[in-house]
Amino acid sequence: MSSQKVDAGKLLQQIDSPEDLKKLNETDLPELCKELRQFIIDIVSVNGGHFAASLGVVELTVALHYVFNTPYDQLVWDVGHQAYGHKILTGRRDTFYTNRMYKGISGFPKRDESPYDTFGVGHSSTSISAALGMAVASHYKNEEQRQHIAVIGDGALTAGLSFEALNHAGVEDSNLLVILNDNCMSIDPNVGALKEYLTDIATSKTYNQLKKDIWRLLGPISKFGPNAREIVKKVEKSIKGTLLRKSNFFEALKFRYFGPIDGHDVKHLVKVLSDLQHIPGPKLLHCITVKGKGYPLAERDQTKWHAPGLFDKITGEIKKSAAPKAQAPKYQDVFGHTLVELAQQNPKIMGITPAMPSGSSMNIMMNAFPDRAFDVGIAEQHAVTFSAGLATRGLVPFCNIYSTFMQRAYDQVIHDVAVQNLKVVFCLDRAGIAGADGATHHGAYDLAYMRCIPNMIVAAPMNEEELRNLMYTAQLDQVKGPFVIRYPRGKGVMADWQKPLKEIAVGKGRKISDGDEVAILSIGHVGNFAGEAIGLLEQEGIRPAHYDMRFVKPLDETLLHEVFKEFKKVVTVEDGCIMGGMGSAILEFMADHNYQAQVVRLGIPDKVVEHGEQAELYEECHYDAAGIAKTAKALFSGSSASNRLIAS
Amino acid sequence: MSSQKVDAGKLLQQIDSPEDLKKLNETDLPELCKELRQFIIDIVSVNGGHFAASLGVVELTVALHYVFNTPYDQLVWDVGHQAYGHKILTGRRDTFYTNRMYKGISGFPKRDESPYDTFGVGHSSTSISAALGMAVASHYKNEEQRQHIAVIGDGALTAGLSFEALNHAGVEDSNLLVILNDNCMSIDPNVGALKEYLTDIATSKTYNQLKKDIWRLLGPISKFGPNAREIVKKVEKSIKGTLLRKSNFFEALKFRYFGPIDGHDVKHLVKVLSDLQHIPGPKLLHCITVKGKGYPLAERDQTKWHAPGLFDKITGEIKKSAAPKAQAPKYQDVFGHTLVELAQQNPKIMGITPAMPSGSSMNIMMNAFPDRAFDVGIAEQHAVTFSAGLATRGLVPFCNIYSTFMQRAYDQVIHDVAVQNLKVVFCLDRAGIAGADGATHHGAYDLAYMRCIPNMIVAAPMNEEELRNLMYTAQLDQVKGPFVIRYPRGKGVMADWQKPLKEIAVGKGRKISDGDEVAILSIGHVGNFAGEAIGLLEQEGIRPAHYDMRFVKPLDETLLHEVFKEFKKVVTVEDGCIMGGMGSAILEFMADHNYQAQVVRLGIPDKVVEHGEQAELYEECHYDAAGIAKTAKALFSGSSASNRLIAS
Repeated sequence: MSSQKVDAGKLLQQIDSPEDLKKLNETDLPELCKELRQFIIDIVSVNGGHFAASLGVVELTVALHYVFNTPYDQLVWDVGHQAYGHKILTGRRDTFYTNRMYKGISGFPKRDESPYDTFGVGHSSTSISAALGMAVASHYKNEEQRQHIAVIGDGALTAGLSFEALNHAGVEDSNLLVILNDNCMSIDPNVGALKEYLTDIATSKTYNQLKKDIWRLLGPISKFGPNAREIVKKVEKSIKGTLLRKSNFFEALKFRYFGPIDGHDVKHLVKVLSDLQHIPGPKLLHCITVKGKGYPLAERDQTKWHAPGLFDKITGEIKKSAAPKAQAPKYQDVFGHTLVELAQQNPKIMGITPAMPSGSSMNIMMNAFPDRAFDVGIAEQHAVTFSAGLATRGLVPFCNIYSTFMQRAYDQVIHDVAVQNLKVVFCLDRAGIAGADGATHHGAYDLAYMRCIPNMIVAAPMNEEELRNLMYTAQLDQVKGPFVIRYPRGKGVMADWQKPLKEIAVGKGRKISDGDEVAILSIGHVGNFAGEAIGLLEQEGIRPAHYDMRFVKPLDETLLHEVFKEFKKVVTVEDGCIMGGMGSAILEFMADHNYQAQVVRLGIPDKVVEHGEQAELYEECHYDAAGIAKTAKALFSGSSASNRLIAS
Repeated sequence: MSSQKVDAGKLLQQIDSPEDLKKLNETDLPELCKELRQFIIDIVSVNGGHFAASLGVVELTVALHYVFNTPYDQLVWDVGHQAYGHKILTGRRDTFYTNRMYKGISGFPKRDESPYDTFGVGHSSTSISAALGMAVASHYKNEEQRQHIAVIGDGALTAGLSFEALNHAGVEDSNLLVILNDNCMSIDPNVGALKEYLTDIATSKTYNQLKKDIWRLLGPISKFGPNAREIVKKVEKSIKGTLLRKSNFFEALKFRYFGPIDGHDVKHLVKVLSDLQHIPGPKLLHCITVKGKGYPLAERDQTKWHAPGLFDKITGEIKKSAAPKAQAPKYQDVFGHTLVELAQQNPKIMGITPAMPSGSSMNIMMNAFPDRAFDVGIAEQHAVTFSAGLATRGLVPFCNIYSTFMQRAYDQVIHDVAVQNLKVVFCLDRAGIAGADGATHHGAYDLAYMRCIPNMIVAAPMNEEELRNLMYTAQLDQVKGPFVIRYPRGKGVMADWQKPLKEIAVGKGRKISDGDEVAILSIGHVGNFAGEAIGLLEQEGIRPAHYDMRFVKPLDETLLHEVFKEFKKVVTVEDGCIMGGMGSAILEFMADHNYQAQVVRLGIPDKVVEHGEQAELYEECHYDAAGIAKTAKALFSGSSASNRLIAS
């Protein structure tokens, strides 16, 4: 990625903080929105990043900072990739060109980046809980004037966490405004019953007529702040008859419901938000927006333009990255195509994704077997327990969840799948360092948190062929119980990857190359980095051996006996947290069998790793090829430093 | 606990399976319900177990097995402690006296115990997801006649997982019946907006009048199974006008809503369930029941009678267990009282519990500071992110969650708390072996899954005083970031526990006793077992040293350097999974610093540990005093067995 600066428009240039924004006349706001939108297009087209979500909330962002006294008033953005406009208006216009770059600003709100970022976020559906916590704190501190606003998409609303928060908020008498940014989308189109319900509200003619009447009513009186309560009562009375029938999903949860309104009418937004300030208690404003608004191509294909990469902003042509090494495919596509191949042979196979059809390539299965693949919405917990239900009936669900999101369904993996030893195949995409999405998105912990669960098989493929064979193996009848296959974001290493499928014996690793004195034990794709490292070392006349463990659980104990009988110096390499990960599993084996060897463990260190390109972060964590080579060399040379120091 | 058999009533005696039940006349069912209720009272009063929940669903249980073709029709019980009647009617009447006993039947549904137990369960809110999975599988297999029923309490409905499942089920055209067992209770009274909404439905006079009309309408026609669709249409039409206003929380989610009906009228239940069989698609039946029904004391104090222990069934006197050793308090009560003590001094402290006020003793704080303690309902995810929100505003939340339930909020701990290094104190009750609740409830994994998270402090007190001091330490201003304190179910060891509060340096362990040749490193309450073990060994003239690590993270490296410089034989002891736990952390330290020693790790082995008394299970896992002593002795004697064998 490059990092090019671009010029902001005339109004936007003057805005270094929301205070500057407040100096504008209301009549200037549409022009500012135009400039803000253009600035986002200009920057994202040359620097990359999330795109359509922030375009969809330009007006909302401007109106919120215009009306509310941020950061005193607490504004919480859900998911966070809608917050570019917010960042630009809150002092980060001139650094915004470093968005998502290594050492640059984060693509998501981040507390230590700005006081305007009240809550760090990357995963969805946290905003209502967090804002409620803030609101309750204000109530406790007698800061009754302080406002708390959560902006959440209709996609994020389907996650259980949002519902838990609504259920609690409805009975807390705190100053909470939830803004439902309803664009009918997650990254892919939103699904589920609630979405249909919202669409129904949004398109109801009667309803809209009623709404008009109500806002006409609210309009003139709204200047009388103290009387707002009375107004609301009147409004409520007038709507209760016919309206509640439609709107009371939220009313049932004791929220006052307002809307739906046009989320692209900035002046109207300003008026409505100003009015809502004076209404106490939990309330929800339903805004209809268009994801990608103002960039017609993005409006038309919102999934593609969620995070399109670099593009020509005039023609809309998305730039392909430089010729890929040997045309290797993305791991996710290997998953997608292989799943279809397996499903053709095995009618028991089903596919499940929580709102990531395109991100995980489950859409390939959804197209091939529409009745055998399920997008359950942003609902990781349900995705897992639903899979468990399928498994009780003898089906073989492939439940594909990003490693970082699998944290959301940890109990379901233990309680609903592993304790019952049900056969669910978990494919964890984006395992290890995730790249530009940063701290919230690295799939750092899965090897550690999965391997401690009984009955679990935990594997990671070193390349495309291995991924295919692990998937093939996992679905075979003779393999019982849950099976985790984790693989990284991005591309593999094989141009010619569609090899015939072969069974891999569960718990069997393999020797990749012979060597002397030092053995490198790797798991997963980073085995290729180990291979490169060995190439580097061979130039210096050193040749460590290399083993691909393939399975963190069960460990290949036969292979490990072989290794530790021969080698007294070992480097372990994994694209996951060092603490508790594969290296740790190998230490356990050694302790159990009284092996003694010098072991240096490479992987993600015990700190929050920020964003950057994957290669940059591998290097930072010292398990890129150079880092592995350096470590192995230190062992060859008999370094007397502590192994922890050697690894860093 | 004893395990006494009791006689079943005349009708119940004849029922070895639902087939036998179906032979009864409908007019016999009330009598059977009476007998079933009495049988549960007779057994639980002398053998212990969950009580009030199963009493509340006696009629529902009988009606379900009378009407549906179980186990072909798939019946899924949520939470599971309501399933005693189900167990008794499905072939386990004569073994029911072994309920929750070591090697006896499980207190929860369990797949390998009976084909009638379609889904194992202990944690709440999984039933709709699981039943939907089964229903979708049936649809895929063209088994359109097969019925799928989830029975879920209103308390369990507040968990996000339930909502995720409803949201998905609403758009799947599958044969799913959700029975809402609405008794206004979790273990403690249910809370939240949805509960208020349900109460509103259940108590609405207009509504009930309407319902009467509707069921009068349904009555005669219901015999015409094939016409049921028509009936429903009529019903829907007649209710849409005024009724949906109240009922459409579920209608909004595309469920057909029926009810509320009296869940203790078994004949009516039979009729309604028979009718519902013929209505396709997702539907919800709202039953009003009384937890503890038929045992007046239990009806009056449902929390106390959730799982009362042994009692005199005539007088209702709850039997105290034999004189407690030195009157030591329960850890949970030490938590509760200490929190209040701290809150008196530190106005920033708040308490949060997800539906466990009495189970965690958070109710002590709720009574002392009603505005500073929150029961957020069964909603662990929200409990954590809500706490994070409080922490952003400078408050110090003590978020108390059973270790096993904390698995539900793993992502929130990582993403919302740890990544942002927010100061939330997590108190994990029931950590380690939980006892009679069994496989689903052991808090086995927390040390492993918590210690791999950056910024985390993870501690476990060896006794009451240590728990108090850890709590005191965690809330001090100088301690930044998240802090986990985990402690077991049951009693501590100190009669005189209310000592003055003292700071413990973070990451500092302590030497408990000097010794020779072998060092025992323990964490948490099991340190007392290690102490006993040393007592046993001293009688044989052997004296291992003993260290209480206190913190799994950060490890006390100074202390460990001391240990490994002196000792070449080490036993680690923890009440948690061996794989990835404290022992593993110590192996990592050794590897990092090139220490070599023989290390035997004791803890929960890599298998699903079933139910039993805690002492029985400690023994089974070999880390009771005898197990520790045996292991240490083997090291003294220079056993040549593998360390894994020594530990088992």
